Amino acid sequence: MQDHGSLPSVLDVHVNVTGRSSVLGKVKSRKARWSVRPSEMSNKTFNPIRAIVDNMKVKPNPNKTMIALSIGDPTVFGNLPTDPEVTQAMKDALDSGKFNGYVPSIGCLSSREEVASYYHCPEAPLEAKDVILTSGCSQAIELCLAVLANPGQNILVPRPGFSLYRTLAESMGIEVKLYNLLPEKNWEIDLKQLESLIDEKTVCLIVNNPSNPCGSVFSRRHLQKILAVAARQCVPILADEIYGDMVFSDSKFEPLATLSSNVPILSCGGLAKRWLVPGWRMGWILIHDRRDIFGNEIRDGLVKLSQRILGPCTLVQGALKSILCRTPQEFYHNTLSFLKSNADLCYGALAAIPGLRPIRPSGAMYLMVGIEMEHFPEFENDVEFTEQLVAEQSVHCLPATCFEYPNFFRVVITVPEVMMLEACSRIQEFCEQHYHCAEGSQEECDK
Amino acid sequence: MQDHGSLPSVLDVHVNVTGRSSVLGKVKSRKARWSVRPSEMSNKTFNPIRAIVDNMKVKPNPNKTMIALSIGDPTVFGNLPTDPEVTQAMKDALDSGKFNGYVPSIGCLSSREEVASYYHCPEAPLEAKDVILTSGCSQAIELCLAVLANPGQNILVPRPGFSLYRTLAESMGIEVKLYNLLPEKNWEIDLKQLESLIDEKTVCLIVNNPSNPCGSVFSRRHLQKILAVAARQCVPILADEIYGDMVFSDSKFEPLATLSSNVPILSCGGLAKRWLVPGWRMGWILIHDRRDIFGNEIRDGLVKLSQRILGPCTLVQGALKSILCRTPQEFYHNTLSFLKSNADLCYGALAAIPGLRPIRPSGAMYLMVGIEMEHFPEFENDVEFTEQLVAEQSVHCLPATCFEYPNFFRVVITVPEVMMLEACSRIQEFCEQHYHCAEGSQEECDK
Ligand SMILES: Cc1ncc(COP(=O)(O)O)c(C=O)c1O
Ligand SMILES: Cc1ncc(COP(=O)(O)O)c(C=O)c1O
Repeated sequence: MQDHGSLPSVLDVHVNVTGRSSVLGKVKSRKARWSVRPSEMSNKTFNPIRAIVDNMKVKPNPNKTMIALSIGDPTVFGNLPTDPEVTQAMKDALDSGKFNGYVPSIGCLSSREEVASYYHCPEAPLEAKDVILTSGCSQAIELCLAVLANPGQNILVPRPGFSLYRTLAESMGIEVKLYNLLPEKNWEIDLKQLESLIDEKTVCLIVNNPSNPCGSVFSRRHLQKILAVAARQCVPILADEIYGDMVFSDSKFEPLATLSSNVPILSCGGLAKRWLVPGWRMGWILIHDRRDIFGNEIRDGLVKLSQRILGPCTLVQGALKSILCRTPQEFYHNTLSFLKSNADLCYGALAAIPGLRPIRPSGAMYLMVGIEMEHFPEFENDVEFTEQLVAEQSVHCLPATCFEYPNFFRVVITVPEVMMLEACSRIQEFCEQHYHCAEGSQEECDK
Repeated sequence: MQDHGSLPSVLDVHVNVTGRSSVLGKVKSRKARWSVRPSEMSNKTFNPIRAIVDNMKVKPNPNKTMIALSIGDPTVFGNLPTDPEVTQAMKDALDSGKFNGYVPSIGCLSSREEVASYYHCPEAPLEAKDVILTSGCSQAIELCLAVLANPGQNILVPRPGFSLYRTLAESMGIEVKLYNLLPEKNWEIDLKQLESLIDEKTVCLIVNNPSNPCGSVFSRRHLQKILAVAARQCVPILADEIYGDMVFSDSKFEPLATLSSNVPILSCGGLAKRWLVPGWRMGWILIHDRRDIFGNEIRDGLVKLSQRILGPCTLVQGALKSILCRTPQEFYHNTLSFLKSNADLCYGALAAIPGLRPIRPSGAMYLMVGIEMEHFPEFENDVEFTEQLVAEQSVHCLPATCFEYPNFFRVVITVPEVMMLEACSRIQEFCEQHYHCAEGSQEECDK
């Protein structure tokens, strides 16, 4: 207490201003009271999935084993291990002893070179200087939004869409404007509505292709139309292509940047999905800026922001070359044919259930299912529907309210085939038990 | 362009407001111009080390091999490998195949349990719920500042001190108030000056012990006095203890939280330094809050903030138990005796050089050296001094201006002994060549 005499008068002001007086009653030790409050930023950081899932009040049916079709993590069931080459690459990086130290915050040069040459193509050339390695695709998205947007500005986000965009934007005071994806057009963007949202404060258009939660894959033609809007309105694009190349054989994935030479594009990706190692937290930003619209300033801004917490684990950086170059084509192929077969199976089963309207996916690891709520009058909405599905059938799907799209639910199609089948038949049982004819549509009920 | 007719009128306003008119002169395609500007946050993100080092205009002496005593990375010279148990733990985690997927954003429960029990002690008990795993100690510090401070509030930061505190704070609009460490008192805090800085907007006191860049270790008595200030002023503490336990045998490291039962403390640490794997990006926050002053709100705030980019690489999380429990005592001991011997060697050599005043470290991996600038009139400051040292002797030390402490430089003592010796003798040569007697102090020059 010896320093107490030297307290500056401002502290007295503090104590008075806040109306706090001594608890101890000592004359000289007037004491402020503890009052530690979380910041506005942390208050504004909101994860809708957590909010909805954690508020679920129901317990699974104890007589049925739980089937979680809710988690976008392909590793949970053990049926989709990563390739042995990927694991070996990590061991080699470990054994070399060369990847334990600090590297530049945007990633070590040789690893950035590897990513650049892996994604380089004549229509969208890339060099090491165009690549920033990040702690997962999540940090890639965070850095892009942080460099492009100030508080009070706005970004365009798909609905339905991955919830992290809003979580990140709102934590930084960036406004989110939702543009619509149209289920009846295979989740293509409602381009008119999209364009109508753009105003002078719009600093970024997020395009997620292939899509979580839709499993949709945009055609070249549709992508070109999206680019036309961006070009006309001068809005740069954040292309979330974490599911890039994860498309079924009847579709083709076109990296957005290969279709435009004038719209500046930050393409975000990573190892999480295609290489089936989401926990490793390896992501990247590919900077496409052939017209020099981002210029050095945005590049420097990204570099500076990367210095706040530094990039991804150096071991994974060290393994990147082998992961990209030595993983056999067969591995990718096997993953996709498994996903495709599960998607067909799930789509077929759910499409046959009265009251449900699944939409056939073309890629990624998800399938969206519309609920004809008028046929399930017991349930207020998709949240109640999926809750009760857990309670009765121990099948957990995320209500699409998590993706700002009520009256749908999302199915994750990475589970083993037997579970997929079992889940579908339980969903069928559930729907049959709760299906009611909507008034004035007797025919449908007779079918 | 087919959607152009549907542009809403707000866009016209936009074009008018910003005074932009069509470049192409077409009647219907009035076009906004591209103007993508980096955000204020990225502009405010400033790394003084980068700014100073990148502005260095000099080249090393081509006749002398470069000796970098500038990088706080113990792995660069290969003389301080991590323990084989640490590498083995990673391989086991890899082989198990169990640590490739997502885990909770604050880290998986079993890993948090291990950290809790490793740092638990009766005076400062810890459970899994008190541990948050982060992407390096850097993200630990970022999360702590982000949850405690709003823009416009201030934090107390040591001078000299690690530059990341300011980088992070200013990027978030948090004001930095510098409190002084006193070289003549082995870098103890000037407590009166510290206390005089506190005002009603002070939300956090950062205490870095052991210290980067000083290599100092606070005594129990001094820590108690720091805690007394925090208790009196009701300011929570961020204890940056990344060099915890890295103290030489004549000192003792006391975790701050073990000395207080009322001041709420967020202790930040990680694997980077003690386990010699800074690239692996494994850090943590230990929440000490026995009086429930942080309460659930700060804990929840940290959890919410952790969801923005998720935590550290899951493989390292999986390896954490073995890393903490199986690394032999000998490993820590060997590291420390090497550092101690290098510190003695460097201190001894530099103390004998007229014009330099090294301060003997007690821990961490650094040593600060005062430059009696009056004896080196050719150089304006420590930046010029260290620049010229590179140009003539190819020895690179960081000018302590990087740590807001002019007229000192920092030596990293993790380099192999021969390099340490060689560097010291080159520094000696350099000082002898540039040393001038200060006016009116002839005796010193005769010595
Ligand atoms: C569309 C989309 N973008 C980004 C991410 C985040 O990826 P990461 O785990 O690499 O941060 C996900 C994860 O599910 C995602 O679905
Ligand atoms: C005092 C101090 N705190 C924090 C850090 C950051 O540690 P990490 O590499 O785990 O982010 C460092 C790194 O040098 C440091 O010196």
